[in-house]
Amino acid sequence: MKHLKVPVLAINFKAYPTSFGVKALEIAKAAEKVAQEYGVEVIVIPPATELRKIVESVSIPVYAQHADPYEYGAYTGWLPVVALKDIGVRGILVNHSEHRLRLDEIVAIVEAAKKYGLETLVCADTPIAAAAIAAIKPVALAVEPPELIGTGIAVSKAKPEVITNTVQRVREVNKEVIILTGAGISTAEDVEAAIRLGTAGVLVASAIMKAQNPEKVIKDMAAVAKAAYK
Amino acid sequence: MKHLKVPVLAINFKAYPTSFGVKALEIAKAAEKVAQEYGVEVIVIPPATELRKIVESVSIPVYAQHADPYEYGAYTGWLPVVALKDIGVRGILVNHSEHRLRLDEIVAIVEAAKKYGLETLVCADTPIAAAAIAAIKPVALAVEPPELIGTGIAVSKAKPEVITNTVQRVREVNKEVIILTGAGISTAEDVEAAIRLGTAGVLVASAIMKAQNPEKVIKDMAAVAKAAYK
Amino acid sequence: MKHLKVPVLAINFKAYPTSFGVKALEIAKAAEKVAQEYGVEVIVIPPATELRKIVESVSIPVYAQHADPYEYGAYTGWLPVVALKDIGVRGILVNHSEHRLRLDEIVAIVEAAKKYGLETLVCADTPIAAAAIAAIKPVALAVEPPELIGTGIAVSKAKPEVITNTVQRVREVNKEVIILTGAGISTAEDVEAAIRLGTAGVLVASAIMKAQNPEKVIKDMAAVAKAAYK
Amino acid sequence: MKHLKVPVLAINFKAYPTSFGVKALEIAKAAEKVAQEYGVEVIVIPPATELRKIVESVSIPVYAQHADPYEYGAYTGWLPVVALKDIGVRGILVNHSEHRLRLDEIVAIVEAAKKYGLETLVCADTPIAAAAIAAIKPVALAVEPPELIGTGIAVSKAKPEVITNTVQRVREVNKEVIILTGAGISTAEDVEAAIRLGTAGVLVASAIMKAQNPEKVIKDMAAVAKAAYK
Repeated sequence: MKHLKVPVLAINFKAYPTSFGVKALEIAKAAEKVAQEYGVEVIVIPPATELRKIVESVSIPVYAQHADPYEYGAYTGWLPVVALKDIGVRGILVNHSEHRLRLDEIVAIVEAAKKYGLETLVCADTPIAAAAIAAIKPVALAVEPPELIGTGIAVSKAKPEVITNTVQRVREVNKEVIILTGAGISTAEDVEAAIRLGTAGVLVASAIMKAQNPEKVIKDMAAVAKAAYK
Repeated sequence: MKHLKVPVLAINFKAYPTSFGVKALEIAKAAEKVAQEYGVEVIVIPPATELRKIVESVSIPVYAQHADPYEYGAYTGWLPVVALKDIGVRGILVNHSEHRLRLDEIVAIVEAAKKYGLETLVCADTPIAAAAIAAIKPVALAVEPPELIGTGIAVSKAKPEVITNTVQRVREVNKEVIILTGAGISTAEDVEAAIRLGTAGVLVASAIMKAQNPEKVIKDMAAVAKAAYK
Repeated sequence: MKHLKVPVLAINFKAYPTSFGVKALEIAKAAEKVAQEYGVEVIVIPPATELRKIVESVSIPVYAQHADPYEYGAYTGWLPVVALKDIGVRGILVNHSEHRLRLDEIVAIVEAAKKYGLETLVCADTPIAAAAIAAIKPVALAVEPPELIGTGIAVSKAKPEVITNTVQRVREVNKEVIILTGAGISTAEDVEAAIRLGTAGVLVASAIMKAQNPEKVIKDMAAVAKAAYK
Repeated sequence: MKHLKVPVLAINFKAYPTSFGVKALEIAKAAEKVAQEYGVEVIVIPPATELRKIVESVSIPVYAQHADPYEYGAYTGWLPVVALKDIGVRGILVNHSEHRLRLDEIVAIVEAAKKYGLETLVCADTPIAAAAIAAIKPVALAVEPPELIGTGIAVSKAKPEVITNTVQRVREVNKEVIILTGAGISTAEDVEAAIRLGTAGVLVASAIMKAQNPEKVIKDMAAVAKAAYK
């Protein structure tokens, strides 16, 4: 299994109009270009319908937005972890605040991902939830207070103690997991704050997906991440 | 909106190894070939990750195995109805026994599908549930007692009264919805029985997806459907 | 099985401070007194923890706020329909907007209730959902657009067409089910409108549960219901 | 907040015929008698409808089988943590294998319980899930491989390594949480094994609830627990 480098700029495409088709592919390619230029780990996380095309088109890590803790089988409308692996996906975003899962499902997905050599980036809404997730030993976790998601108010500004408490609680349990800041990341300044508060990067969505010029936003964030991270 | 012809042979790909990649494409193309040869409406229902490729590759109706009752937006890991429409999908399989939904979700998906000109094929486990679905006015519904799914025991043989009761209860509520028989359809004989009992075709999965020669099974079923349906 | 009389005033206790303990018992007794005075069918619907005491204390119909479609068995934290019957409950509120259920669960609960001689009052958020529920043949249904619940804006005022459309769609499917108006009922005037628009009463919560004088509100609503219903 | 003593014999009443009414009360009283005789902490965990009566009738800890992470409010069919506190319940069983919860719900219930001075006993199906729960810091946790629940095959016999791995993984994260063994406990010998493998007692259900003589089973288990635990 390859290993994620730090700092990390993880782009959750969500399900915006730009998250599908030609636009999605353009943003993925812009992300790849920036990753190569700045040596920052840029992860793209498109919807399920776009995974094949984007996996074939870029060399940076592509994650799925969700997976189901199943093997191949009779699972109408679900997406088994193993199928993602065969498609060439590198990892899975798990338990996003828009897609909360049962604890047993989170454990099963992380374990299945390990079995098939996939990475996992698991979301948490509080420092305590982050500590619980750290005990499951995913590759990375992101803390994102749901009340800030999509607001354009960065958790690093509005609630910096959520970040510092998360780092502290998580490190009591797990020294290795990569910790990211999510929720309300809208500017390069927010990325800088996220790193200064002790995390290794950000999970970001609308600031890029809804930007006039997504490549510019990715570039600005990557540049700051590179500079701020030691 | 185009209209489904009858009889219908709807192939639920589920999430078998053959449901993805090259194998899935081959089965979709075999289905297209049979549909053209026999003049039967063959619908293919692949996993979300395969929709784009299959929509581009065949001219028969392609349905999604599931959709979420959302517009474009911040819906990580979900699949909005409108996105399926833009991908070129013709319809949506809803409420499969492996993916049961809340009543309000079923209504919302069927309504969103109508808004965007997509068809819906909604599953029911009992004649009463089928009547409830008929009242929502999807294009088609399939009755499939969950205890028979994947058993290779056709509902038309094991519980023919489930089919006849379904037809009766549904017709009290809705004269137009296309009624299909699901669950345990494994042979052309089962297709014949499904039609003889008053439904307009079948929803079938493993009998085709796990066949040595899927094209032959599709062909046999289509031939019988064509002959039996008046 | 006894039969619900009309008009109906169904009081959903929800989970307010007044919904438990002494206060809940007082409101149930006030409801009983009004029911006897006005000859209106007043149903009380307390939380699970209060059912035994209230069933023992009043002679009007007591419904549970929810039940699970199970027999007795290994169902930790769930409430089987049969257990409610043995407790002496008269019916079950099903699929409230704060507790939406899968279609197969709604069918299973209504069927289990029939098996054990319990009544069901099933909620719907739209006329289409109401038609689907009508096809399941519960004793009663209530339509309550979720955007109005708890607002104090009565559906009968804000969206009278939701009520009239519901009555029309439901009657196409089921001539007998009792139709109630829910959502935002706050005054006797709202009850009057609900009946004038063609329903047989109301499902009401906060207007009574949060009132300074619940008995007075119940009395006013019952008086109007009695007068308006022919 | 009082503190649980060890060893612990936690009796999950589930939803059997004996879990309700007179029978439930008898078992709760038998549990109280044994607790007093043997100085073992016996917890009874009846269904929601029985809580009031049993809380009033016995002095041993009474837990609810489930709670919802809400304050008082508009929560039809749900049971707020604070309402349980006002009823006099001592704690909450959380995330039982028959009632699995989302991670964010588990955190919210445990936090709400702490706020109101209630204890929590949280279930886990694997050592990894147990470690995650340990990071949330409930008062107690129980590990119960779901494949053994209700089988009469004790995890301590069939999969002793699940117990020892759980103890090890949990202790890496949390030195204080009380660890119990669940799943398949049917005899006093199973209780002895559970304690010998390093846990502080058991979570047991059918072996007591379906016994001819529940008091005798409780007594035998308590006696062994007392003797085996140091």
